Amino acid sequence: MPYVNIKITKEGATTEKKAELIRGVTNLLRDIMGKNPQTTVVIIEEVDTDNWGIGGETVTQRRRQGS
Amino acid sequence: MPYVNIKITKEGATTEKKAELIRGVTNLLRDIMGKNPQTTVVIIEEVDTDNWGIGGETVTQRRRQGS
Amino acid sequence: MPYVNIKITKEGATTEKKAELIRGVTNLLRDIMGKNPQTTVVIIEEVDTDNWGIGGETVTQRRRQGS
Amino acid sequence: MPYVNIKITKEGATTEKKAELIRGVTNLLRDIMGKNPQTTVVIIEEVDTDNWGIGGETVTQRRRQGS
Amino acid sequence: MPYVNIKITKEGATTEKKAELIRGVTNLLRDIMGKNPQTTVVIIEEVDTDNWGIGGETVTQRRRQGS
Amino acid sequence: MPYVNIKITKEGATTEKKAELIRGVTNLLRDIMGKNPQTTVVIIEEVDTDNWGIGGETVTQRRRQGS
Repeated sequence: MPYVNIKITKEGATTEKKAELIRGVTNLLRDIMGKNPQTTVVIIEEVDTDNWGIGGETVTQRRRQGS
Repeated sequence: MPYVNIKITKEGATTEKKAELIRGVTNLLRDIMGKNPQTTVVIIEEVDTDNWGIGGETVTQRRRQGS
Repeated sequence: MPYVNIKITKEGATTEKKAELIRGVTNLLRDIMGKNPQTTVVIIEEVDTDNWGIGGETVTQRRRQGS
Repeated sequence: MPYVNIKITKEGATTEKKAELIRGVTNLLRDIMGKNPQTTVVIIEEVDTDNWGIGGETVTQRRRQGS
Repeated sequence: MPYVNIKITKEGATTEKKAELIRGVTNLLRDIMGKNPQTTVVIIEEVDTDNWGIGGETVTQRRRQGS
Repeated sequence: MPYVNIKITKEGATTEKKAELIRGVTNLLRDIMGKNPQTTVVIIEEVDTDNWGIGGETVTQRRRQGS
């Protein structure tokens, strides 16, 4: 019955990659923690690089600087 | 002063339904918990069916299979 | 398949009140949005009044001032 | 290594204001708590006024009433 | 730079299992999405079974009924 | 009306420091974004170092290694 929220920057993750990630995380919770996959919820949120900050800067700023 | 976050799949919930849900949840917190409605915050997030997984599959995949 | 997160201050909500709130919110989502109760997840988080701020003050500070 | 999630109503915050907020919050965590800015993550989420409720009403409804 | 929040019921997950889950999710994000493990944050929250509802009931109630 | 959630590792932040952080973040949102402090909510969550992962390791593991 776990609930997983994954936030990543919005940079073109494909539908296939997202489905693969959901499957992978659900399987990990079953294999490591014994959690029932049928009630495992995984939500992916894709966040604009203007709205994601790390090190005091937005990801947009960091990408522009090549970091 | 409660804070409520509701995540649902993005499948055309109308403005009216969302307003009704916000009113209903706010009233529940007042009636059951005695919480002040004036400072109760309710945020609804509508999530793409490609980004919502349950049972190891995306909701998009499940809908396609008729489950 | 909704996911609901409710944060309230930790001030002695009973097990019964919390169960009632979970039931009420689940029913609201069914009645207003047509959501399946069987896969509706509701999580209540109780937060220390030292860790909850509103109006720039902690709830602990506000309670002490009688507001 | 803090993680900060800021939700505001989606009402035209500029890229510059968002960058300024990210910088400010990161600096606060360094100055008050001694947290390392390099690993401080700040995510801003902008929420539609139809999806944000306070006092049992959506912000859209409140704006319309001039409150 | 992903941020992952995992909520599970508080039922005695060991320190080792939690470390294994953190490592596994971080590796998945690298392998599937190409995300840098060094800046991947994973937070596990363990929630009291009285505070977790599914199907309109708390997990405590469901466990008592043997479901 | 912003809502801010701050997660930090549980390592003895004092009541005073937490109150100072709440005041600081509330003021930043007023100064940068013009948000009303009276309805700004800030919640601090303190997370056990066993439950916080970065770089694929728990903070407990990293502290032990002196990193």
